[in-house]
Amino acid sequence: MAAAETVVSAPELAAFVERICLAAGVSGETSRLVAVSLVAANVRGVDSHGVQLLPYYLEQIAWGDVNPAATGHVVSEDGSCLLYDGENGVGQAIAEICCGHAVRIARERGMGMVVARESNHFGACAFWAQKMSAAGKIGIVFCTASSMVPPWQGKATRFGTNPICVSVPGGEELPWLLDMATTTVAAGKIYKAGINGHAEIPAGWAMDSEGVSTTSTEAALKGLLMPLGGYKGTGLAMMVEILCSVLSGGAMSTEMGGIRIRGRAMRVSQTFIAIDIKRFLPPEEFAARMDKLIRMVKSAPPARGYEEVLVAGDPEYRMEARRGVEGIPVEAGTWQSLLDAAAKLGVQVPATHA
Amino acid sequence: MAAAETVVSAPELAAFVERICLAAGVSGETSRLVAVSLVAANVRGVDSHGVQLLPYYLEQIAWGDVNPAATGHVVSEDGSCLLYDGENGVGQAIAEICCGHAVRIARERGMGMVVARESNHFGACAFWAQKMSAAGKIGIVFCTASSMVPPWQGKATRFGTNPICVSVPGGEELPWLLDMATTTVAAGKIYKAGINGHAEIPAGWAMDSEGVSTTSTEAALKGLLMPLGGYKGTGLAMMVEILCSVLSGGAMSTEMGGIRIRGRAMRVSQTFIAIDIKRFLPPEEFAARMDKLIRMVKSAPPARGYEEVLVAGDPEYRMEARRGVEGIPVEAGTWQSLLDAAAKLGVQVPATHA
Repeated sequence: MAAAETVVSAPELAAFVERICLAAGVSGETSRLVAVSLVAANVRGVDSHGVQLLPYYLEQIAWGDVNPAATGHVVSEDGSCLLYDGENGVGQAIAEICCGHAVRIARERGMGMVVARESNHFGACAFWAQKMSAAGKIGIVFCTASSMVPPWQGKATRFGTNPICVSVPGGEELPWLLDMATTTVAAGKIYKAGINGHAEIPAGWAMDSEGVSTTSTEAALKGLLMPLGGYKGTGLAMMVEILCSVLSGGAMSTEMGGIRIRGRAMRVSQTFIAIDIKRFLPPEEFAARMDKLIRMVKSAPPARGYEEVLVAGDPEYRMEARRGVEGIPVEAGTWQSLLDAAAKLGVQVPATHA
Repeated sequence: MAAAETVVSAPELAAFVERICLAAGVSGETSRLVAVSLVAANVRGVDSHGVQLLPYYLEQIAWGDVNPAATGHVVSEDGSCLLYDGENGVGQAIAEICCGHAVRIARERGMGMVVARESNHFGACAFWAQKMSAAGKIGIVFCTASSMVPPWQGKATRFGTNPICVSVPGGEELPWLLDMATTTVAAGKIYKAGINGHAEIPAGWAMDSEGVSTTSTEAALKGLLMPLGGYKGTGLAMMVEILCSVLSGGAMSTEMGGIRIRGRAMRVSQTFIAIDIKRFLPPEEFAARMDKLIRMVKSAPPARGYEEVLVAGDPEYRMEARRGVEGIPVEAGTWQSLLDAAAKLGVQVPATHA
C-alpha cells in the first residue's frame, strides 16, 4: 500500500515536472515555467494550484485542446495599454510574456495594463503578481475561469472563481500578497467536508441546487458555490470578467471551457497591471510606509480564539519557510498521477523516490 | 408633530442644499458639487450617502476642521500617474478636479491614475466613477475612511469601510455600476435592526466586542463590523488602503479623523483610475460586449425566492427612475436637521415646504 504522502524537495519536484512537460512536447522555456509556477504554489501551501494540476494540463495537450507550441502575439500596444492574443498556448508561457510587457510599460509610462485573450490556466495568480512586485512594481492580476459560480439570486453558473490578486513590495516586511477567489471558499473545502464526513458546513459557503443558502454538506455538494458575502462577491466577479474578458474581446462567462473539459479550448482571459511606485513616492518611502501599515494592522489586539493578527500572505510565507526546509508533502493520489504520467512518457522519477 | 418624511423633488432638494452650503461660506462651484453629489445618492436610494451627511459637513466647516476655500494642488504628474494634495478642502471639490485629471490622462495615455491625499468625505464613490464612465472611460474609485472595522482575527479597528467602486459604459444597457464597502454590510443595517427591535441579525454581519462572530443584535451594536466574508474582506480593505493612503503619502489606518470627529482633519486618501477603452477595443464593440455579458448573467434562472437575476447598479437605477418622478422622501430627523441649518444660516426653505 502506498504511503499517504510522498515528501519531495521543491527543486526535485520542479525538475520532475519539467521533465514530464518536456516529454509531453512542451518547449524547454515553457516546461520550466510550468514546473516552477506549480511547485511555487505547493511551496506556499496552495496545493490546489500546485502539481496536482499537471495531469489536467497533460490531458489538455494530449486531446489537442491546448497548443503547447503557441506563445501568442501582441495584437496592439497603445499608450499604457497592450492587448495580447495567447493563441491557445500554455497559460504560463502567455503570462510570462504579458507580465514582462506590463512591467516594461509601467517603467516607461507609469502604468502598464496588459489584457490577454485565448489563454489557458496559468497556475496561481500569485506567481505572476509576485513577478511584478519583484520588479519593484505594484502587481495586480485578474483572470476569468470556467463557469462554476452562479450570479447572486441565480441558480445556474455564469462566472468562474474569478480571482483578484495584488502583490506589493515591502521594506523590511515581506511583500504584501492578496490572492483570493471571489467566492467565499474554494470548491475544494466543500469536497473536503464531504470526504471527512462533516454533515454541516459554515453558513455562507454554499447554496443548494435551488440557489438557497445551505449549511448541509450534502446539499452543498449537489449545489453551488456562494459568491463572497453574497451580491458583493458577484459584483467583484463581474468586475474581473469585465476587466479581463470584455476588454480582451475573448470568450465571456459560459463561453469558456475548462481544464477538465474535453474537446474545446479553455479561452480564458487574463489581465496584468503594473504600477510604477516611484511616480508617486520615492520607493524607499513607499516601502517604509508599507512596513508601517503592516505593523499598525498587526498591532490590533487579537480576537478571542486567536493569538495574533495576520496580513494577507502571512500564512503562505510561513508555509514557504517550512516547506523550503522540510520539502513538499505530495498526496498519494497526486503523486501516483505524476508517476503514471512519467511512466507513460518514459520520464525518470526523482532518484530518491524511484 | 412632524410627518415621518418630507417628499422633495431632486432639483428642489439640490437647490436647498446648495443655498445652505453657500451661506456656510462654501464657494459657488463647490456648493453646487456638494448639493448635486449628495442628492444624486438620495435619488439612487443610497440615503446613507445623501443629504443626511450635510449637517456633519457643516459642523466640520464650523469647527474649522475642513477648509471650504481650499481646492488643493497637483504635487506631481509623471506619465499615467498624478499625485494630488487636497489641502483639507471639501472632498467633492477635490474629487471633481481629480476625476478631470484621470479622464484627461487616460485620453492622452490610455490610463490615468490619480491619488489624492489630505482629502475629505466626497459623498458616494459612485458619483465620481459615473463621471468617468460618462466620459467613455472605465472609472474606478477607491477611498479610505475613518477607522471602524477590525482586521480579521483582531478586535480593534484598523480600517475604514474602504469601498471599491467601478462604473463601466454600456451600449443599450445602463452603465454597470458597482459601489461596495468591503464590510459585509453597512453599520446602518445593524443600527436599523436595533431600532426595529430585531434580536437577531444574519451570520456574517458583525462580531461582538471580543471579535467573535455573533448573530445577537445587542452584541453587534456593542461590537464590530465584519469584513466581507472574513479574511478576504480584510484583504480587500488593505488593498484599498495601499492603493490610496500608502501611495498618497497621507494618513493611514487609525491616523485618519472622521466626519463626526471634532478637532482634527479627516485626512482621507482617494484614488481615481480611468481606462481608455478604445486602446483595447473599438468602443462600440466593447459596448456590445457589455450588453451581451449583462444579458448572459441575467439569463440565469432565478434562485428559489427570487424573481430575477440583477446586476450591480440595477436596484439603484430602478430607484432613480422612481424618485426622479415621485421625489425623494427625506426622513423626519434629516429634514429637521436641514431646516435647523437653514434657520441658523438664514437660508430660505423650498417654497413648497416652507
